[in-house]
Amino acid sequence: MIVVMKPQASEESIQAVTEAIKSYGLETHVSQGRQITIIGVVGDKTKLANANLEIFENVQKIVPVTESYKLSNIVFHPEPSSLSVGNVTFGPDSMVIIAGPCAVETEEQLLRIAKAVKKSGANMLRGGAYKPRTSPYSFQGLEEDGLRYMKTAKEETGLSTICEVISPDAINAAVKYVDMIQIGARNMQNFFLLKEAGKSGLPVLLKRGLSATLEEWLNAAEYIMAEGNENIVLCERGIRTFETATRNTLDLSAVPALKSKTHLPVIVDPSHATGVRNYVLPLAKASIACGADGLMIEVHDNPAKALSDGPQSLTFSQFDELCRELAPYVNLTGRSFHGV
Amino acid sequence: MIVVMKPQASEESIQAVTEAIKSYGLETHVSQGRQITIIGVVGDKTKLANANLEIFENVQKIVPVTESYKLSNIVFHPEPSSLSVGNVTFGPDSMVIIAGPCAVETEEQLLRIAKAVKKSGANMLRGGAYKPRTSPYSFQGLEEDGLRYMKTAKEETGLSTICEVISPDAINAAVKYVDMIQIGARNMQNFFLLKEAGKSGLPVLLKRGLSATLEEWLNAAEYIMAEGNENIVLCERGIRTFETATRNTLDLSAVPALKSKTHLPVIVDPSHATGVRNYVLPLAKASIACGADGLMIEVHDNPAKALSDGPQSLTFSQFDELCRELAPYVNLTGRSFHGV
Amino acid sequence: MIVVMKPQASEESIQAVTEAIKSYGLETHVSQGRQITIIGVVGDKTKLANANLEIFENVQKIVPVTESYKLSNIVFHPEPSSLSVGNVTFGPDSMVIIAGPCAVETEEQLLRIAKAVKKSGANMLRGGAYKPRTSPYSFQGLEEDGLRYMKTAKEETGLSTICEVISPDAINAAVKYVDMIQIGARNMQNFFLLKEAGKSGLPVLLKRGLSATLEEWLNAAEYIMAEGNENIVLCERGIRTFETATRNTLDLSAVPALKSKTHLPVIVDPSHATGVRNYVLPLAKASIACGADGLMIEVHDNPAKALSDGPQSLTFSQFDELCRELAPYVNLTGRSFHGV
Amino acid sequence: MIVVMKPQASEESIQAVTEAIKSYGLETHVSQGRQITIIGVVGDKTKLANANLEIFENVQKIVPVTESYKLSNIVFHPEPSSLSVGNVTFGPDSMVIIAGPCAVETEEQLLRIAKAVKKSGANMLRGGAYKPRTSPYSFQGLEEDGLRYMKTAKEETGLSTICEVISPDAINAAVKYVDMIQIGARNMQNFFLLKEAGKSGLPVLLKRGLSATLEEWLNAAEYIMAEGNENIVLCERGIRTFETATRNTLDLSAVPALKSKTHLPVIVDPSHATGVRNYVLPLAKASIACGADGLMIEVHDNPAKALSDGPQSLTFSQFDELCRELAPYVNLTGRSFHGV
Repeated sequence: MIVVMKPQASEESIQAVTEAIKSYGLETHVSQGRQITIIGVVGDKTKLANANLEIFENVQKIVPVTESYKLSNIVFHPEPSSLSVGNVTFGPDSMVIIAGPCAVETEEQLLRIAKAVKKSGANMLRGGAYKPRTSPYSFQGLEEDGLRYMKTAKEETGLSTICEVISPDAINAAVKYVDMIQIGARNMQNFFLLKEAGKSGLPVLLKRGLSATLEEWLNAAEYIMAEGNENIVLCERGIRTFETATRNTLDLSAVPALKSKTHLPVIVDPSHATGVRNYVLPLAKASIACGADGLMIEVHDNPAKALSDGPQSLTFSQFDELCRELAPYVNLTGRSFHGV
Repeated sequence: MIVVMKPQASEESIQAVTEAIKSYGLETHVSQGRQITIIGVVGDKTKLANANLEIFENVQKIVPVTESYKLSNIVFHPEPSSLSVGNVTFGPDSMVIIAGPCAVETEEQLLRIAKAVKKSGANMLRGGAYKPRTSPYSFQGLEEDGLRYMKTAKEETGLSTICEVISPDAINAAVKYVDMIQIGARNMQNFFLLKEAGKSGLPVLLKRGLSATLEEWLNAAEYIMAEGNENIVLCERGIRTFETATRNTLDLSAVPALKSKTHLPVIVDPSHATGVRNYVLPLAKASIACGADGLMIEVHDNPAKALSDGPQSLTFSQFDELCRELAPYVNLTGRSFHGV
Repeated sequence: MIVVMKPQASEESIQAVTEAIKSYGLETHVSQGRQITIIGVVGDKTKLANANLEIFENVQKIVPVTESYKLSNIVFHPEPSSLSVGNVTFGPDSMVIIAGPCAVETEEQLLRIAKAVKKSGANMLRGGAYKPRTSPYSFQGLEEDGLRYMKTAKEETGLSTICEVISPDAINAAVKYVDMIQIGARNMQNFFLLKEAGKSGLPVLLKRGLSATLEEWLNAAEYIMAEGNENIVLCERGIRTFETATRNTLDLSAVPALKSKTHLPVIVDPSHATGVRNYVLPLAKASIACGADGLMIEVHDNPAKALSDGPQSLTFSQFDELCRELAPYVNLTGRSFHGV
Repeated sequence: MIVVMKPQASEESIQAVTEAIKSYGLETHVSQGRQITIIGVVGDKTKLANANLEIFENVQKIVPVTESYKLSNIVFHPEPSSLSVGNVTFGPDSMVIIAGPCAVETEEQLLRIAKAVKKSGANMLRGGAYKPRTSPYSFQGLEEDGLRYMKTAKEETGLSTICEVISPDAINAAVKYVDMIQIGARNMQNFFLLKEAGKSGLPVLLKRGLSATLEEWLNAAEYIMAEGNENIVLCERGIRTFETATRNTLDLSAVPALKSKTHLPVIVDPSHATGVRNYVLPLAKASIACGADGLMIEVHDNPAKALSDGPQSLTFSQFDELCRELAPYVNLTGRSFHGV
């Protein structure tokens, strides 16, 4: 951490800062420029978390020089992590395709979709049982029944399964039925839920918040990891900008940027990001090309009748075509792909 | 709801849409332009929530013409609401000043601050017992102990009290100790927590999400109200933009815009919005001038030692000066003010 | 300027940076932390403008410690500037009300509006002769004829005048007819136009770009000032965010933030910022309350027939009421106000 | 265009709107819902450009149903355009690689870079002679000398050439020396410059504005096309968001979204978008994978000494590797590639 003083900073105000830092058991290194004095802090800066140096007289700004996240930081874990979920592995050698409906509607529907996506090449099944909807008057999900159908679908197809959770009760239920839980964008900074997910021990897919920075996202992962659960996959799903042609703005630069900051696997959800079915295939290809470790794709047997997010869902034949078209892109990356 | 068809839409595709709408028990009104055909939907559009008309062939877009929120909508409740919390009233005739520390640190500190802010003119005490912090390694709050100190502070000063809650457990505890609960920005779309807050029956201060639209915000209020709890105050606290000179961008246009959309009271938190102590007073004045029903201000007895958000906290003398300087602005609005 | 090295930085890579800095005639001050080494640069950092230290081996980041703008910087000019334009003064002691139509349409219309706004209390007349419109098929302005009508309006009412310019030709024409030129949001980083405006010697109202940071805005002012023209007023007009309830998001925190960074006067345009007539009055009051030195308000004799931006224009009686309602707020600031 | 009336709209206010519309020579189609009345407008809506229907009594909102851009609109030109520039073709069958330095520094440097990028596979040379820089104290470009060196580079290598222009003088000079001009992000809504570029007849590369919507961007293209110059290529270069890990947020969803709205070719500039050299290759692959018609890449012989944007520039060997790694991705798209 570096403290930058204002141009007119007096000797007294500089000394006040250095003494405050020393009172926390740290050392300082003062560097006097022609206009500006800067004070380097030597030692463990977490001791200064509550020092509020910003409000000392004549302090211009505080510049952090190390990141606040540790367990997820690539600096302390330079090799990319691999993570097994059921019979699927997230990591640098494979391409995971998660597919399924936005919301589980009936057992029959889910089985029909599970069989279809498996046949086309998906290796994991998604299906929402607890739906975080903007309006309380929209369909909220089948809850535990939905989870139960997911378990049946797994038994019938062998696909690993993932469901979003939105409460401690949902986590407790999910533990019984699915292989992986998802923390959605709206809950990325629901720190209570992150801790509960950490305690559950289940692998967690952590989606990026609607307007979360990469640093906040990695700190959210840190909440889960600090509970002893290191089984985390990050999922880019678009951020909020002024653009209205797509539901969100898919930030694919986040993929290489995350790869330079963390060892955790990173996947991409082009369906939620764009909200437009026709943009899913080109952006799925782009995700693979820029280094994503997997994809999450919405598929529905009858999008026109889907209870949630129909406009961005692919039909069975569209998903089948997607898998076929993605295969050569996956091959270029040298990853394994169950797709075709 | 209006369905706009693409220029080349065939008779069949138009009919497919009108028949789908009718299958949900609604009527249509087709309007044929020179280039474009539009289909108006007559009846209760909530029946169409899952119709996914967007993906019918040749549909260009769906235009909603009524808002999805109802209980909070000014259309169905044209008079501004008033809401009593302890001995304080939020509404068009009064100016509520909520003040206190970001986080409760010790009982003595809280009492000291409560007495000081009361003396200067605050009529409600804030103090965080459960702190949603970006990093798991930052101070997380005193939890139930903090709530207990809030109750003591209320008993000693007569100030009404408010605390943020971040979990069902926190709500259950808060019911025993404080007058009002706060749902913070990061939990604005934690729909599970909103429902729990609704069931608690306690008055709720609902802060705007980091990047929430007014419509999403009012829908979040709707989640609470749909549980039968109509005691809600909205709090603008800045939104996320590209600007880095302030922590967030305070959106004061949200005040008159909300007043045109909802009957719920609206207050402003200039402390969290800017993150800079010197900007709090001018923006507090501006908030009053543009129609806010109250303010939330951070005050600390020793900001340099605050465990959370010191840089934006006012000292006792700064808060006293703030109340004095605000008084004539409140007077211009014709509202009552316990301030001076 | 501070260079922060990566944790694993070798002696050689640190030395490579210090030698590069010294090769530009500057001195360094190396501070070795437990994990991190930082290198302070002593001397005139502009010499390093092209050193690209970011790409030296093991450099983590470069932290600027002084702003890049100088002539507009409050550090070098601690007193707020005052600026006379015709018979109006922008500065800390007065409140300037600029009013008029978005676009000049006819001479009669302009005269009618000029007389009305003067009577209500405006002291400066706005009116666009060159309109930057999103679509080439929208009304583009009367050009030099519009400027000529502005001059007539000035002669008949005594109001000082301001017009937007969008090209060197427009500047050359404006010099002959009006007291002040405006650089609009879309041209804030049209550096060629900024230089031409600087050379013209005319006072310049510089609007904030659609998504400009305060630092970029002050650097744009610097382009004008570097040509020897220090007669600049800044105008906040809203920034682009995800919110759609208002056309832009008025950033009133920019007013106190600018006052802490620059000596230039700052005014606010609530008409363009919101695009909604009913929000203009509350935000005009708020602008005054938070320290603005003036306001720019759109007024039209028949908003329903305005050729540009009718929805946000006030009628004569609305503008008259606005001036009456603003007067007590101006009085509280101790500024002079010709308004009422 | 559809006019949506407020729920309480009286017969009179509905009639006032329909009569206003008819007074412009258009027909209306009134559709009475249970709560809401909507008025469809039949005929050429451009006649209503100045009708300001928004401010009629009881009008809730105006919903446009057709886009304001025409010449660039895919509706009226369903086949993708092809555009020849020198010996290069932009269009659906080829992949154009534009490479070169951010700024032209010396003739020798430019020739060295031109030869290197040609050898690796570039088919067009970029090099800035007029640099729009945030600060007036940064290097502003060699101006006409820079253009002259571009011509020499073309003569020596056969590469087609492109230069950014920022003023009418720059356009007049560019016509003499280069094959294509570029309008940069900061000038995307410099409508005066767009018109001048249109009149020049030269092919134009139009970069997306810092925070421009796709609709504004296509309207900017429309300004050029309305002057009779249809030789336009669009270039996505990142938009401004809250994220700070990259300089801008590259919006790759803009590629398929534009392809659904316009027939103009679309290329991507990953160098300016990210500002980080290591992210250029993965995002270049992604751009190709999602349908881009070309790439613009910064290359410098000695990035550490570049006068502009060194940190994101590739070295010769990095660019050579990039071309090799891109080749198989281009092959998958079926486009021709001079790259390897």
